[in-house]
Amino acid sequence: MDGIAPARRIIDQAAQRAATVNEQTGQAPCLATVLVGEDPASVTYVRMKRARCEKAGIRSRHVALPATTGTAELVDTISALSHDPEVHGILLQHPVGPHIDERAAFEAIAPEKDVDGVTTRSFAAMSFGLNGFASCTPGGIVRLLEHYDVDLAGKHAAVVGRSAILGKPLGMLLLARNATVTYCHSHTIDLPSITRDADIVVAAVGRPRFLLGDHIKPGAVVIDAGYNPGNIGDVDFESASRRAGLITPVPGGVGPMTIATLLAQTVDAAAQQLGCTPDESFPHFRSN
Amino acid sequence: MDGIAPARRIIDQAAQRAATVNEQTGQAPCLATVLVGEDPASVTYVRMKRARCEKAGIRSRHVALPATTGTAELVDTISALSHDPEVHGILLQHPVGPHIDERAAFEAIAPEKDVDGVTTRSFAAMSFGLNGFASCTPGGIVRLLEHYDVDLAGKHAAVVGRSAILGKPLGMLLLARNATVTYCHSHTIDLPSITRDADIVVAAVGRPRFLLGDHIKPGAVVIDAGYNPGNIGDVDFESASRRAGLITPVPGGVGPMTIATLLAQTVDAAAQQLGCTPDESFPHFRSN
Repeated sequence: MDGIAPARRIIDQAAQRAATVNEQTGQAPCLATVLVGEDPASVTYVRMKRARCEKAGIRSRHVALPATTGTAELVDTISALSHDPEVHGILLQHPVGPHIDERAAFEAIAPEKDVDGVTTRSFAAMSFGLNGFASCTPGGIVRLLEHYDVDLAGKHAAVVGRSAILGKPLGMLLLARNATVTYCHSHTIDLPSITRDADIVVAAVGRPRFLLGDHIKPGAVVIDAGYNPGNIGDVDFESASRRAGLITPVPGGVGPMTIATLLAQTVDAAAQQLGCTPDESFPHFRSN
Repeated sequence: MDGIAPARRIIDQAAQRAATVNEQTGQAPCLATVLVGEDPASVTYVRMKRARCEKAGIRSRHVALPATTGTAELVDTISALSHDPEVHGILLQHPVGPHIDERAAFEAIAPEKDVDGVTTRSFAAMSFGLNGFASCTPGGIVRLLEHYDVDLAGKHAAVVGRSAILGKPLGMLLLARNATVTYCHSHTIDLPSITRDADIVVAAVGRPRFLLGDHIKPGAVVIDAGYNPGNIGDVDFESASRRAGLITPVPGGVGPMTIATLLAQTVDAAAQQLGCTPDESFPHFRSN
């Protein structure tokens, strides 16, 4: 399941929509990126996201804070962006460091600017099918499954990993699409017996080559949401690809869809905030 | 798994704590109950909840609205209660009727007064282990499992039903306690094959005697969260009790725990809002 081509299509649509927003309002959509400290991987991610924005006609405003920044200061910075009418989306690059209350920082993002889908309001929106933005990786995975016409209704999906921005929201999005969803994690006893029952397996644990071919039912759909150092996924592609019906590569699978979702949601947020004419052909992410 | 005795214990503790709150502040905890229309079952539920409050030293303030009440009016009523310093907890009896946007009404409840655990903020709190109140039935079920020393870590729990105030939050509470959680529902293919794999099965579908003994692994823990007309649960007690290791009856199982949780959370909300001395012996519900 190549993610590059469908991601490109979404980004093209986002770029078109961004141009329309600019024409209608004289303002380009603007994503604020907030980075605390100088973790090299985070610096790279943010730089890459900003470059993709620029190519799609989305402005970005970068806020670089020193590693010593405290929770209160970070919350103030994000709140100011939430109130700034020139900013339409806010991305706080995580992790933010153990001395910061990440949840407090996330919650300072206004729901209508939460294009990365990290607030509790966005999580509830995904869970209850309300208006709101998806967490980008789960949203990208669901778009990818739709692109490959993977029918979710009634299918058994095993989500391995339960983080607040990946496993948990993804399970809720799959559940909203009528999959039977099992959340597995580090305490799960006999993980293979569960994943081998599943029609769809999503690996989202952050451990390189954690999921093996032996974990997978022949013909199952395997989504690798892992991204470990050295471009290594959470799935052992070699053994898993011999069993899976469909499988995402790393890189080039989930990753591009994550970024495409971020861009599409930023443009969507700008269009909404600036009161643009609705565009039904634009691929809004619908939580429900 | 009798729920009456553990519920009584929680209610006794809530009554003691309510008396302390009253002594320290000159104010008794107060629950506002809001009822739209005159559905006989809802009238009975609200009357029963208010009677239990009174017995525990919790005041209640009842707001009865005509069945014709619209969303805006209901939201205004609830917002006023959210801002009223004499009200510490708010319960909107549901269902509220199809012409009302129930979600909008729920969201008008201030999070610190959401003692019934129906807001999106409370759902996220249960999901992410943040401070907040539990939905009463899920919270009551978890307390019941704790009372009977049912170890959840690593166990496979099948939650049958995915409503916003029962199945979904319950799954999140079980997941937070390290169970492997499967959400099943009306689209699930071959439900018995999933429930027969589970160490803990929760029936929360609202269909009388829906879950049969044949659905259950010998020795499993069976929780019947159903409450259908005629005091009939979602589990066929006769066949299920022959297979289950532990099973809740209806009535006298989950129901009393639900009310006990409502009372305990109301007292807890009042103590917090009135700035009472913390009482660590009080059985706070902790989401995480």
